[in-house]
Amino acid sequence: MPITDTQKEELSDLETQVGPTRRDSSPGLEEVLYKAFPVLDHGFVRVIDYMGNDNAIVQAARVSYGKGTKKVSEDRGLIHYLLRHSHTTPFEMCEIKFHIKLPFFVARQWIRHRTANVNEYSARYSILDKEYYIPSPEHLAAQSAINKQGRGDSLSPAASQEIIEQLRKESEHLYAQYEKLLNEDNQGNSLDSEKEGIARELARTTLSLNFYTQMYWKIDLHNLMHFLALRADPHAQYEIRVYADIMLDLLKRWVPLTYEAFIQYRKEGARFSQNGLKTLKTLLKGTPVTQEESGMTKREWQEFSEMLDLTR
Amino acid sequence: MPITDTQKEELSDLETQVGPTRRDSSPGLEEVLYKAFPVLDHGFVRVIDYMGNDNAIVQAARVSYGKGTKKVSEDRGLIHYLLRHSHTTPFEMCEIKFHIKLPFFVARQWIRHRTANVNEYSARYSILDKEYYIPSPEHLAAQSAINKQGRGDSLSPAASQEIIEQLRKESEHLYAQYEKLLNEDNQGNSLDSEKEGIARELARTTLSLNFYTQMYWKIDLHNLMHFLALRADPHAQYEIRVYADIMLDLLKRWVPLTYEAFIQYRKEGARFSQNGLKTLKTLLKGTPVTQEESGMTKREWQEFSEMLDLTR
Amino acid sequence: MPITDTQKEELSDLETQVGPTRRDSSPGLEEVLYKAFPVLDHGFVRVIDYMGNDNAIVQAARVSYGKGTKKVSEDRGLIHYLLRHSHTTPFEMCEIKFHIKLPFFVARQWIRHRTANVNEYSARYSILDKEYYIPSPEHLAAQSAINKQGRGDSLSPAASQEIIEQLRKESEHLYAQYEKLLNEDNQGNSLDSEKEGIARELARTTLSLNFYTQMYWKIDLHNLMHFLALRADPHAQYEIRVYADIMLDLLKRWVPLTYEAFIQYRKEGARFSQNGLKTLKTLLKGTPVTQEESGMTKREWQEFSEMLDLTR
Amino acid sequence: MPITDTQKEELSDLETQVGPTRRDSSPGLEEVLYKAFPVLDHGFVRVIDYMGNDNAIVQAARVSYGKGTKKVSEDRGLIHYLLRHSHTTPFEMCEIKFHIKLPFFVARQWIRHRTANVNEYSARYSILDKEYYIPSPEHLAAQSAINKQGRGDSLSPAASQEIIEQLRKESEHLYAQYEKLLNEDNQGNSLDSEKEGIARELARTTLSLNFYTQMYWKIDLHNLMHFLALRADPHAQYEIRVYADIMLDLLKRWVPLTYEAFIQYRKEGARFSQNGLKTLKTLLKGTPVTQEESGMTKREWQEFSEMLDLTR
Repeated sequence: MPITDTQKEELSDLETQVGPTRRDSSPGLEEVLYKAFPVLDHGFVRVIDYMGNDNAIVQAARVSYGKGTKKVSEDRGLIHYLLRHSHTTPFEMCEIKFHIKLPFFVARQWIRHRTANVNEYSARYSILDKEYYIPSPEHLAAQSAINKQGRGDSLSPAASQEIIEQLRKESEHLYAQYEKLLNEDNQGNSLDSEKEGIARELARTTLSLNFYTQMYWKIDLHNLMHFLALRADPHAQYEIRVYADIMLDLLKRWVPLTYEAFIQYRKEGARFSQNGLKTLKTLLKGTPVTQEESGMTKREWQEFSEMLDLTR
Repeated sequence: MPITDTQKEELSDLETQVGPTRRDSSPGLEEVLYKAFPVLDHGFVRVIDYMGNDNAIVQAARVSYGKGTKKVSEDRGLIHYLLRHSHTTPFEMCEIKFHIKLPFFVARQWIRHRTANVNEYSARYSILDKEYYIPSPEHLAAQSAINKQGRGDSLSPAASQEIIEQLRKESEHLYAQYEKLLNEDNQGNSLDSEKEGIARELARTTLSLNFYTQMYWKIDLHNLMHFLALRADPHAQYEIRVYADIMLDLLKRWVPLTYEAFIQYRKEGARFSQNGLKTLKTLLKGTPVTQEESGMTKREWQEFSEMLDLTR
Repeated sequence: MPITDTQKEELSDLETQVGPTRRDSSPGLEEVLYKAFPVLDHGFVRVIDYMGNDNAIVQAARVSYGKGTKKVSEDRGLIHYLLRHSHTTPFEMCEIKFHIKLPFFVARQWIRHRTANVNEYSARYSILDKEYYIPSPEHLAAQSAINKQGRGDSLSPAASQEIIEQLRKESEHLYAQYEKLLNEDNQGNSLDSEKEGIARELARTTLSLNFYTQMYWKIDLHNLMHFLALRADPHAQYEIRVYADIMLDLLKRWVPLTYEAFIQYRKEGARFSQNGLKTLKTLLKGTPVTQEESGMTKREWQEFSEMLDLTR
Repeated sequence: MPITDTQKEELSDLETQVGPTRRDSSPGLEEVLYKAFPVLDHGFVRVIDYMGNDNAIVQAARVSYGKGTKKVSEDRGLIHYLLRHSHTTPFEMCEIKFHIKLPFFVARQWIRHRTANVNEYSARYSILDKEYYIPSPEHLAAQSAINKQGRGDSLSPAASQEIIEQLRKESEHLYAQYEKLLNEDNQGNSLDSEKEGIARELARTTLSLNFYTQMYWKIDLHNLMHFLALRADPHAQYEIRVYADIMLDLLKRWVPLTYEAFIQYRKEGARFSQNGLKTLKTLLKGTPVTQEESGMTKREWQEFSEMLDLTR
């Protein structure tokens, strides 16, 4: 299932094809269209199709705001303005379609973003390939350390290595069992003609959540930015963040002006509460404020201080 | 507002431009891209952008059903199969964007289809043009006759003509008043420099529902077919149906195989109730069934008989 | 159409009824259930039904976060935490249903919030009542002043009064014409038995956007807060803001803890861009920053300064 | 995780509580509120909350259709009419919230219904219990036979039993390994104080898709019927169908009139294509039609014949 043969044929036809269109294009994205960017040990992200570019956003905004937007002399300013003021509908006018290969447990998080269209490989009808995710030793240790929140030592390199060997052995064993239950290999050939296999829809339930699936995923630019704001973020699990990070690069290629505004107003910006804002005003007047006076909880105070480099 | 000058410039740039793309195209739709198809007295529908074609549906289905779909030897069969069995997600993989000019009262019906993206001209910020919808005498008479459901005579040609004159006079009057309230014309020039105009957001509230607005409307193919099934239908109001009829032609250009399946399985198909199905089975065995025996109400029985040409 | 007789009967049955339920309730909202809160000159907002309360949010969060949330010792803290960190799904577990009477032009803005359910009165099938919105002289003047953005004097009281008289006269005229076109009154009685009226679906198109319609509107708590954040805001048009303001009070009655968090983290909080945040850090270190150095545009700098009371 | 202790407390408080409300209730659903209906070997479905009943649908329809609906003399007729003619918005006015325990592979299918709200137990933060799904021997054999589509013999009882033993052994093994990787039990107690465990978010990826999760799932009545039409259907996988079947009973308790209409017009009704309808008309006139003449494919012809009991 890395990519099926049928897909490969179709995609290589597409990759070599360059045709004329009267549609507007995104030169940056055209360069990498269909290209599979590797993620994790067996996954990938590739852009399969798209509609619109920065111009499409400007155009849509001008339908809405009519002649009034003539004043906004240039596209960059308008796009920044729209994002700053959460006028999100013009961004919905662009659409992108990805082909993604990812472990089940990542797909389960991914799919929680409901305002998108999905076609996932169905293990009810087809046989999954022997591809499973095994974390690298560094990430195994790092994630464990973060999750313990400093309550313990990190895993030693030796301990990490041992666990990884075990994970690999287990996944191999599960796949062997899967084939035996099906009594067919992933080409659909019977393994033991004397025996009956069980239904594919049941056999798949014995595989673990680190096995890979793949899907087509289509989303508009506004909702994509929402996805990226949540998933290309240190709070997201490492295994979904690496996908989001690559998609952030693809965003930059597709709609460079929007990307710039996204970084400025969403990704690297910050939100303050009513108490945070009041505290800021006082501090800026040169008056010190304590956590108690601020009305914030200890945790909020800490987050506030970190955001503003107030801790030393 | 027929199309603003800014839009005209942008669009004529786009219309003459033909560029290379590695994306798959729809030759039938490329031919009419950006072309405004007139609707009613001042409205239009034009396709501004699109993503995907019949191939994209087949491709998405093959991701889902994997190797299993190899058996379905050809695309036409697969698309028919998907639509017949309501496997709708592959159709969500195609997207289309329209630019539509339409009266307010049509826009109000249109917008009830929520699974779409919209950018509408804002009369809060911009001034509406003097464009309003007046029905033709035939439609005025025809719609009124239907609505009376045979309870009265049709409007006479003379009566229709008289009403139409009155509608036109009234709309002209409302627009003149609108300009006076704004104290500016639609180029933003002050009319009477001695006076103050009222806010655009308030002045617009005095215009009637037959004035024209315009919008960009983007929707996926699955939801477009749902829209067309409801609106390109005799039960829909004439003034929205004429838009849907043109979009049905555009559907045929864009995705000819899907169009064919849509006509076959949705538009010209029929749904029967449990009682209807039971009655059909009995009738096909050669046994007559009365309305009372069928379990259907009189109205259902009539609908049932009409669908099957059983009335004479 | 203030409220139809059928509705009145049904609602008065409901209002007097108190029945037992095993569902959890919101005592604050029960007190005002079905009560119509007047808005503008003929509009209202009333809560017709609801599901869930602050407890429901806590419960849903605990399903998600499992035993881990035991540590969050109390509900208030958990709700604040969820809203601060944009964990929005637990708020989707509460639902509310409103009955709203509002002018067409307000309904047109309202309906742009797509993640909600709507049943609107249909003037295709029924006759609209003679109810239209006329701004008060103060709001007429105030909105016009704001929209002119200081480019002119306010309307004088005399000018406002004159305009209002004219608006009223015009609306009366339009309704009289509507009845004449229909050739029936709003009880469905024929006015002139010698003549034919035109279809309701066409007659309605002659009424202006300040006439009233009504709808049932159902939305989950997360999306309601999004609506209120945009519409109970000084940038929103006055005529929709007054509805949102009342709904904000209803929010407080329904889910008091969530209301508190909403005010703290959304409504009265503020978002800063990457440049804004960088500027804040520098200022807090005691180093002055100019607009040019900040990387912000003049307009952003002004917004930044106003948010932080930095202007004098 | 069958139900956490915190949940048990909360739910038992709720179950014994009966309070007054001015909201309309559904007596049939109140009787079983909070009750867990067992599904599969460890799963359940329970209704946690709801809003509205058959009356709410009628009320909403009357807002839409105004005085016109007075003619529809009774609620039953109106609800049947609405469903027959796909006037779906009034059904969106009712909402229901379920608490569901189900295997991962069922949850993955479930979640594809996007127009719903979900809070799922997070194994990123909490530890999963030792609960996994093992099919019964009959279903293992039955599902496998269907999937082979007559291409082989069924599994023998002995073969089924053997496979089931193996599945159970494997799941036990995976859970033991999960605990060892975590180095804690599901109360959060450390197992081996000398060792470090790995992060919960990684350990969970080693469990197989037959392990149980749980979620709160909230949906409106229209979308629930769509879910049930697809999932309480012979084409759905057995393991999701058993959930849907129970929810169908809950639908009957909640909105008995809607349930009746749903069975009549959706569940037990049938849809015919354009060719099917044409063939029906010819057959009803007494003229025989062959598959070739019908324009249907062999497979369509077979489906057509089966629906109408035309095969012998």
